Amino acid sequence: MKQVFETVKIATRRPGLYPFTHEARNFLTKSALGEGLLTCFIRHTSASLLIQENADPDVLSDLERFMRRLVSRDEGLYRHTAEGPDDMPSHIRAALTQSSLSIPFHAARLALGTWQGLYVFEHRDAPHMREVLLHAIGD
Amino acid sequence: MKQVFETVKIATRRPGLYPFTHEARNFLTKSALGEGLLTCFIRHTSASLLIQENADPDVLSDLERFMRRLVSRDEGLYRHTAEGPDDMPSHIRAALTQSSLSIPFHAARLALGTWQGLYVFEHRDAPHMREVLLHAIGD
Amino acid sequence: MKQVFETVKIATRRPGLYPFTHEARNFLTKSALGEGLLTCFIRHTSASLLIQENADPDVLSDLERFMRRLVSRDEGLYRHTAEGPDDMPSHIRAALTQSSLSIPFHAARLALGTWQGLYVFEHRDAPHMREVLLHAIGD
Repeated sequence: MKQVFETVKIATRRPGLYPFTHEARNFLTKSALGEGLLTCFIRHTSASLLIQENADPDVLSDLERFMRRLVSRDEGLYRHTAEGPDDMPSHIRAALTQSSLSIPFHAARLALGTWQGLYVFEHRDAPHMREVLLHAIGD
Repeated sequence: MKQVFETVKIATRRPGLYPFTHEARNFLTKSALGEGLLTCFIRHTSASLLIQENADPDVLSDLERFMRRLVSRDEGLYRHTAEGPDDMPSHIRAALTQSSLSIPFHAARLALGTWQGLYVFEHRDAPHMREVLLHAIGD
Repeated sequence: MKQVFETVKIATRRPGLYPFTHEARNFLTKSALGEGLLTCFIRHTSASLLIQENADPDVLSDLERFMRRLVSRDEGLYRHTAEGPDDMPSHIRAALTQSSLSIPFHAARLALGTWQGLYVFEHRDAPHMREVLLHAIGD
C-alpha cells in the first residue's frame, strides 16, 4: 500500500467550469498504482469541485446560469460585501457544491462513467489560480 | 491493509430515492474487513448519491418535490434540451447533491447513525439501471 | 499504513455553523500520522458538514440566512411535519450540503487552505449534541 500527492494549478478566467480530468489521469499514470482511491481537494472557499457531463458544453453553461440565478448577487441580502458583490454568492455556491471528490480506481483506470468529467467550478468574476490537491492511496 | 471493490446495480423507475444500505452492508460483510473507509461512487451525471433519513418515507417524497420545485423544467432557461425537458434539470440536481459518499466502518459495522440510509437519487423520468461502485480499504 | 478513529461531540444551540477545525487538528497530532487522508463523517440527517471561510463571521451568518430563504419552512409544502416546522427543511438543507468531508494531510498538517475551516452545520432550532466521526488512514 502506497500514497502519492500532487498539487495541480488551474487558471480560471471567469465563473464557470474548468476541466482537470486529464491532469487527474496523468497523476494516476505517474503514480504507477493499480487500484485504490483518488481524492481531489480544492484549497479555496470561493471555488469548488464537481463531476459533470463531459460531452455537451451547453450543460456547463446552463449549470453556471442556473447557479447565478439561484444565488442572487443582490448586496442587500448580505453583510459580507467588502470583497465585492460576487464574493458572498461565491461562498454560497461553493457550499452547495463540493470541496472534495472521492473516486476509486481499478486496473490503473479511474472508475469515472463514460460521460463524467472532473471540474473546478470557479465562482468569482476575476481570474484566479486555483490549487487542487490530488491524493492517491492504493496498491 | 486490504482493498475490495464491487459494482452494485440499482434499477430506478422514476425520479426519487432508492435505498442501497443493505447492499453496502452485505459488501462489507463479504469483505471480511473490520475497520476502514467505504467509498460509494455513482458512475452517472443525471443521478446522484445521498445519505437521508431511513424512517419516514414522506421525507423522501418531500425531498423529491422540493428538488423539482428548486430546479425548474422550463426549457426556456436551458440550451441543453436535446435529451428532453428532464435532462438538464437532472444534471443540476446531481450537481447540488453528491457523486460519492465516504463512510468509515469500525468493528465490521458502517458508522451510519440510527436514522441514516444510503440512497441513489434518480433525477430522470425514464427507468434507468444505475451503477454504484463500492470500494473498501482497511484491515 | 495505520488507521485511527475518534468521535467528536459538538454542542449546537440553534441553526448555524459550529467550527471543529481545532478538534480535527488535535486528532491528527495525537494520531502521529505524517501523511494520509482524513475523513469527517456526521452521524445525523438534520445537521451536516461544510468547509467554509474561517475569517469573517458574517460569511457564516449570511450563509445561514441564505439557506433559510432557499428552504422554506412553509408547512403546506411538506407531508413530513410531525417533528416540527424546522425538521423537513433540515433534511433538505443537509441534502444540499455534505455528510462527509475528505481532506488529505501531508507533513502532519491538514491540507486546508489558509481561509478554510471545518464546520458542523446545524439545521434544527433546538440545541443538539452532534457526533462527528473522525477517521485517518496513512503513514
